[in-house]
Amino acid sequence: MTDLRIDGDRLWASLMELAQIGATAKGGVKRLALTDLDKQGRDLVVQWGRQAGMSITIDQIGNVFMRRDGANNALPPVMTGSHIDTQPTGGKFDGNYGVLAGLEVVRTLNDLNIRTEAPIEVAFWTNEEGSRFVPVMMGSGVFCGAFSLETAYAATDIDGKTVGEELARIGYRGDQVPGEHPIGAYFETHIEQGPVLEDAGKVIGVVPAVMGLSWYDCVVTGMEAHAGPTPMGLRKDALQVATVIMQEVVAIAHRYPPYGRGTVGMVQVFPNSRNVIPGEVKFSIDLRNVNDDLLNTMHAELLAFIDKTRSDTGLTIALDRVSYYPPCPFHPDCVSAVRNATARLGYPTMDVVSGAGHDAIYAARLAPSGMIFVPCKDGISHNEIEDAKPEHLEAGCNVLLHAMLERAGKVDS
Amino acid sequence: MTDLRIDGDRLWASLMELAQIGATAKGGVKRLALTDLDKQGRDLVVQWGRQAGMSITIDQIGNVFMRRDGANNALPPVMTGSHIDTQPTGGKFDGNYGVLAGLEVVRTLNDLNIRTEAPIEVAFWTNEEGSRFVPVMMGSGVFCGAFSLETAYAATDIDGKTVGEELARIGYRGDQVPGEHPIGAYFETHIEQGPVLEDAGKVIGVVPAVMGLSWYDCVVTGMEAHAGPTPMGLRKDALQVATVIMQEVVAIAHRYPPYGRGTVGMVQVFPNSRNVIPGEVKFSIDLRNVNDDLLNTMHAELLAFIDKTRSDTGLTIALDRVSYYPPCPFHPDCVSAVRNATARLGYPTMDVVSGAGHDAIYAARLAPSGMIFVPCKDGISHNEIEDAKPEHLEAGCNVLLHAMLERAGKVDS
Repeated sequence: MTDLRIDGDRLWASLMELAQIGATAKGGVKRLALTDLDKQGRDLVVQWGRQAGMSITIDQIGNVFMRRDGANNALPPVMTGSHIDTQPTGGKFDGNYGVLAGLEVVRTLNDLNIRTEAPIEVAFWTNEEGSRFVPVMMGSGVFCGAFSLETAYAATDIDGKTVGEELARIGYRGDQVPGEHPIGAYFETHIEQGPVLEDAGKVIGVVPAVMGLSWYDCVVTGMEAHAGPTPMGLRKDALQVATVIMQEVVAIAHRYPPYGRGTVGMVQVFPNSRNVIPGEVKFSIDLRNVNDDLLNTMHAELLAFIDKTRSDTGLTIALDRVSYYPPCPFHPDCVSAVRNATARLGYPTMDVVSGAGHDAIYAARLAPSGMIFVPCKDGISHNEIEDAKPEHLEAGCNVLLHAMLERAGKVDS
Repeated sequence: MTDLRIDGDRLWASLMELAQIGATAKGGVKRLALTDLDKQGRDLVVQWGRQAGMSITIDQIGNVFMRRDGANNALPPVMTGSHIDTQPTGGKFDGNYGVLAGLEVVRTLNDLNIRTEAPIEVAFWTNEEGSRFVPVMMGSGVFCGAFSLETAYAATDIDGKTVGEELARIGYRGDQVPGEHPIGAYFETHIEQGPVLEDAGKVIGVVPAVMGLSWYDCVVTGMEAHAGPTPMGLRKDALQVATVIMQEVVAIAHRYPPYGRGTVGMVQVFPNSRNVIPGEVKFSIDLRNVNDDLLNTMHAELLAFIDKTRSDTGLTIALDRVSYYPPCPFHPDCVSAVRNATARLGYPTMDVVSGAGHDAIYAARLAPSGMIFVPCKDGISHNEIEDAKPEHLEAGCNVLLHAMLERAGKVDS
């Protein structure tokens, strides 16, 4: 079994072919969820699935499950998957790689005439990106019961079109009730979307968990005044106080390595005029870490620092938590399946905690799950210049093959 | 002579009457330069001037000089003035007070039948605010030769109308060549536009100088990346580096008290998204101080800090100086005339260096000049809620009367 390998050229060719649908001038892909282009992409992948002998099930939120039977079809399937919708200025690999890696695993099993004990399924989930319709990870979210089908159906794009209408229009509003579809184990291969593997010169990232995140809006209110006539000691400069908090956000993250993250990404200054001391500054705060204890500690330190700053400066500082996603540890059995496969194949590897969300987070609520990361160029994704090396994509797919076989069981022929 | 006082009620009544032209619902004034409303305001002030027995001269940039002859008309006039154009959301006092205080001085001299040795003139300068046409302080700037009449004429508003056309249209494109109008000494009364007098409980600010200012655009370029997958140690967070510079701007100002000023008023973050590490931050820097040595030292410290930060962080940091106005010390004789008058009248007083620009800066290039400040509520100006107390406006006008009399000489009757 150590000899088993997928066909890297075929995987690459399929990735490039799917990337033609919605291809952008800059080499990326724009294929927003439930558009005509998404339908074309779905149709192509489903066609490939049928050609590989798989049967197709579509659920009411448009998640597609492509199934290769096993020797014992009473067993829940070992599933892999991801999504094929993209960001408006998306790349060729985010999501698409996870789906087509699954297809390549099945094609390889077919070529080698390998029969598995449990069935194998390749899924693609509806609207992972959330660019056209919110919330993100919609298909897997409905599937695991994070929110209702009705909520998802009612979501509208900027033109007022709903998910329910658009699913029906493109022919992907299926019959199966979301979630009424057993999963024995779930794996997802994905480009890292970060620079860690590339920086360390590793090929495979074993993903023990996805970070939790805590999002805040912070508003500092001072007093706007003329930059010239107002002495330093009589100022209530909202920006200066805001910069102290912005720096503390990063300091908090540094205190909880290696997975602590602290980011201020969005800033608005009022009145935003060159010769006026800012009277109000509004900014976002994004804290992440790998487990609840650490993230809660970071949250508590942020609150304490805001309180101290309010008291030190006398300015009004409002802090609202606007989102919270708990950390998602993956199942030890799936993580070790990925680790074992990587070791068996001899790829340079390290653990990489995912900082971004994936459908696997929601799948993990229902079944043992794990993820496999491969490097992407400069850690860049959600960008038309997103890039990955064919040999890395091939390696990740090989790991997927071996991990799925470990879980599904190979029937000796 | 110590007994001489202006009529505070008459001054207030004139201020309130002029404020009706362009009055806003919130109690402010919108009377942009060279509009129909500006013409109405000019006509009213000129009418008041004629009623007070003054002769009127208008120069080619629309500056208006209202003259009360002296005993010796070969002497250059002792002039006072300011402007009557306002910001779009301006107040009743900024500029208008300086002009009507001059008118009140003349009315008082008339009432008391006082003859001066040198002539007295009350000027109002065109487009001080610069809201509709740039540059600011246009009339006094052309008058002193800071820039040419042609440059000023060619300035356009957002509708493409030029200063030259608009001056002609409202009937204030005069014949006199700007600057060909002698000035023996120049005084300007003005609301402080800052909180210093109010904070100190003083009534009269003696203004030894106007601060110089140095304006910069700073751009920090890092690398935008996902807030989750990118570890703290691999980030090039442009905002974090920018905050360090923003704080240094204020620290530099604090190192050169009491007149050092450092302000970051305008900030733009790219891409300005909650979960993206900022790749670029652009912000303004405003440094001010009372003399060239101090301002140059602050400038040098800013440059050195930028160099150090560039070297410490490895990020690209561009700093461009976009404007420089040198500090403007007022003439000792005029400053002492104001100081003497204030002492003679017994008003609580302190020195206040002006942090904002005034027509007096340009007048000072041609003649000994000085300014008189009175408190304004909460230090606020350029705002419809701008406010000042009648007794403070009266006090400033009394000081103006005495200072002008000291310079012009009172002919004993």
